[in-house]
Amino acid sequence: MKKSLGQQTLVYPHLVFVIGSYDIKNKPNMMTVSWGGICCSKPPCVAISLRKATYTYNNILINKAFTVNIPSKKYIKETDYVGTVSGKEVDKFKKTGLTPVKHKLINAPYIQEFPINLICQLYKIIEIGLHTQFIGEILDVLIDEEILDQGNKPILDKIQPFCYDSATRSYYGVGTIELDGFTTKSI
Amino acid sequence: MKKSLGQQTLVYPHLVFVIGSYDIKNKPNMMTVSWGGICCSKPPCVAISLRKATYTYNNILINKAFTVNIPSKKYIKETDYVGTVSGKEVDKFKKTGLTPVKHKLINAPYIQEFPINLICQLYKIIEIGLHTQFIGEILDVLIDEEILDQGNKPILDKIQPFCYDSATRSYYGVGTIELDGFTTKSI
Repeated sequence: MKKSLGQQTLVYPHLVFVIGSYDIKNKPNMMTVSWGGICCSKPPCVAISLRKATYTYNNILINKAFTVNIPSKKYIKETDYVGTVSGKEVDKFKKTGLTPVKHKLINAPYIQEFPINLICQLYKIIEIGLHTQFIGEILDVLIDEEILDQGNKPILDKIQPFCYDSATRSYYGVGTIELDGFTTKSI
Repeated sequence: MKKSLGQQTLVYPHLVFVIGSYDIKNKPNMMTVSWGGICCSKPPCVAISLRKATYTYNNILINKAFTVNIPSKKYIKETDYVGTVSGKEVDKFKKTGLTPVKHKLINAPYIQEFPINLICQLYKIIEIGLHTQFIGEILDVLIDEEILDQGNKPILDKIQPFCYDSATRSYYGVGTIELDGFTTKSI
């Protein structure tokens, strides 16, 4: 039996991105978002949605650039923390001990310790409502060498990404599933 | 050591949505997408990205409506299949045995067997490049009663959603992770 829950922003899974940016004084900031995703293959683009009240919102407007960093589960505490405080009040890199690295192509820092970093130049700004969508063209993807297989494909079990469950405000892991006659290998 | 992979659409995890729509003759169609996500809270909106060549693309233009259906892993075979063939050639509901149900608010079918269905009215169309982004306002969320807890919160372990890994073209499950002193319950 279907039950109607009304207007909600409920999907499974929500991804977890940590956005890197510089403020007007080039102080690095990072912020966790779970609203976003790849949105075009040519040019390769990723979208993130932010409220105007966030520190990252203005940082992206100033620099026309941001990074999307995929955390592995060993950084779940840091990821959760940087989603709960504002860069207006806290130096989140100092507080967490994570390392901002400026990328040569854009004025935005990526997070050294996170296994995958998307280097994005602002491509479009879409006003939707309470949230503004920033679409970034992915100029480069950086990845830790040790999580690549011999064919340069990332190994998911080494990335150890995780998801967010907005209904219960908790996180969930991602791993191999096997079904009768239809394992992940057979697709 | 970081390795540069160049311009790629690589994030983890990719979600898996199955989009429901009617064609010009009201024949129901469904299509798997992994590029999309929630993009605004007020109004509550979800974005999906489609190529113009897809059957769903025109269906959404005609009806200004679509559904986003979250599959559980027992339907992984059907989900994979409907992402690999076109509704121009195949009646995918007949072929899979899944049930299209018209929603009273819009002219689009949701998938009865999938545990969560987002009922979306077309809100904005964003031309990005090879892909067009359709932003839908979520008018209602339908959910199977048996996956709700007593507070009407969905129970992730009963939804059994899964993710897509675009690098290896395989699927992965989503489940509880526990870290020392920081379980999903403690956040």
